[in-house]
Amino acid sequence: MIGSRPEAGAPFISFEGPEGAGKSTQIARLVARLEERSVPHTVTREPGGTPLGTRVREVLLDPDLSIDPLPEFLLYSASRAQLVTHVIRPALTQGHTVICDRYFDSSLAYQGAGRGLPVRLLRDLTREATGGLTPDLTVLLDLDPALGLQRVASRGQADRLERADLGFHQRVRQGFLDLAAAEPGRFLVLDATRSVDELAREIWTAVERWLPCTSSSP
Amino acid sequence: MIGSRPEAGAPFISFEGPEGAGKSTQIARLVARLEERSVPHTVTREPGGTPLGTRVREVLLDPDLSIDPLPEFLLYSASRAQLVTHVIRPALTQGHTVICDRYFDSSLAYQGAGRGLPVRLLRDLTREATGGLTPDLTVLLDLDPALGLQRVASRGQADRLERADLGFHQRVRQGFLDLAAAEPGRFLVLDATRSVDELAREIWTAVERWLPCTSSSP
Repeated sequence: MIGSRPEAGAPFISFEGPEGAGKSTQIARLVARLEERSVPHTVTREPGGTPLGTRVREVLLDPDLSIDPLPEFLLYSASRAQLVTHVIRPALTQGHTVICDRYFDSSLAYQGAGRGLPVRLLRDLTREATGGLTPDLTVLLDLDPALGLQRVASRGQADRLERADLGFHQRVRQGFLDLAAAEPGRFLVLDATRSVDELAREIWTAVERWLPCTSSSP
Repeated sequence: MIGSRPEAGAPFISFEGPEGAGKSTQIARLVARLEERSVPHTVTREPGGTPLGTRVREVLLDPDLSIDPLPEFLLYSASRAQLVTHVIRPALTQGHTVICDRYFDSSLAYQGAGRGLPVRLLRDLTREATGGLTPDLTVLLDLDPALGLQRVASRGQADRLERADLGFHQRVRQGFLDLAAAEPGRFLVLDATRSVDELAREIWTAVERWLPCTSSSP
């Protein structure tokens, strides 16, 4: 943990992994469970989640725009800083469980391991941009990039990131796995080729331990 | 000087100062002189100057968007990094005199002195974003903010920065003056209330000293 939480109440949960790994599906399942249990929650995503973040997202995912690795990271960080201040911290302070589709581990994997930016720079600026706010639990949906790209291709036009070469996506996958290995207490690594129901069950078991005062058993 | 130049050839000149100080007018005058002398040159601006920078500029100057100081600085830095790599360095390498309407001193004055971000953070990230590329000459058109805002208001709708309060603009002015005092060899500080012709003459005299192999006398 590199920083402090507003309070030791509701958890902050991030979902990571490549496009096509099923993050959106699993987040929807988790949200449905939280709603069943009447657990107050906030769902958001990176880049995006604020008016500024939405604008930055449009820029980052524009397939026609050329963006070097450092400015790419700076744009993600700009969106992240605004999101932490205006969405994530206020939600946690109100006792909401926060679920974020991607967070700083994506920058470490994509811009660090994938694009080769120095990790020290990424970590220093991330600490500034987030005020040190680290997820309590990070669900990593691990998937062979070739499979992930196939799944994404079947959805239609690929965005700028998705069109990067396979070697890049392999470095990103290894980057995520290295992050998980370094912080086993924070990461839940799951094989994304398993069934949606199995994955949802494992994620719920992990999340439930973090919920304050939840009634037990599914 | 915090970094290295591609070569000790043509100069890199930045123009700084508040909106309404007459930067655009003086840049146009300087360009006309350079054209008279057939001095190869490249004119650009911040934020902007590249396809990415143009998109970031639209975001930064949108009066309807709320942007915190740190993400604001990160967006400027993203535009700057892309500009240095794809416009300024290549132009200098080709022997072009480069004129930039705003550069990193604007971040130090606006986001540092104006918004209160820590100078160490601004300088560290600026060094990463620019690879240490510092102007040879920085023309600071100094103006009382109240006058500058009057001049801008007469042009039509104010953008997000221009609508900030007068106290902010006074801190920015002092920030620029402090930067100039710390690097007197790089800065040419001019009273922007003087006549356009007088200012253009002083700027040309300063620029001419930096030009390689120029024929002398105006």
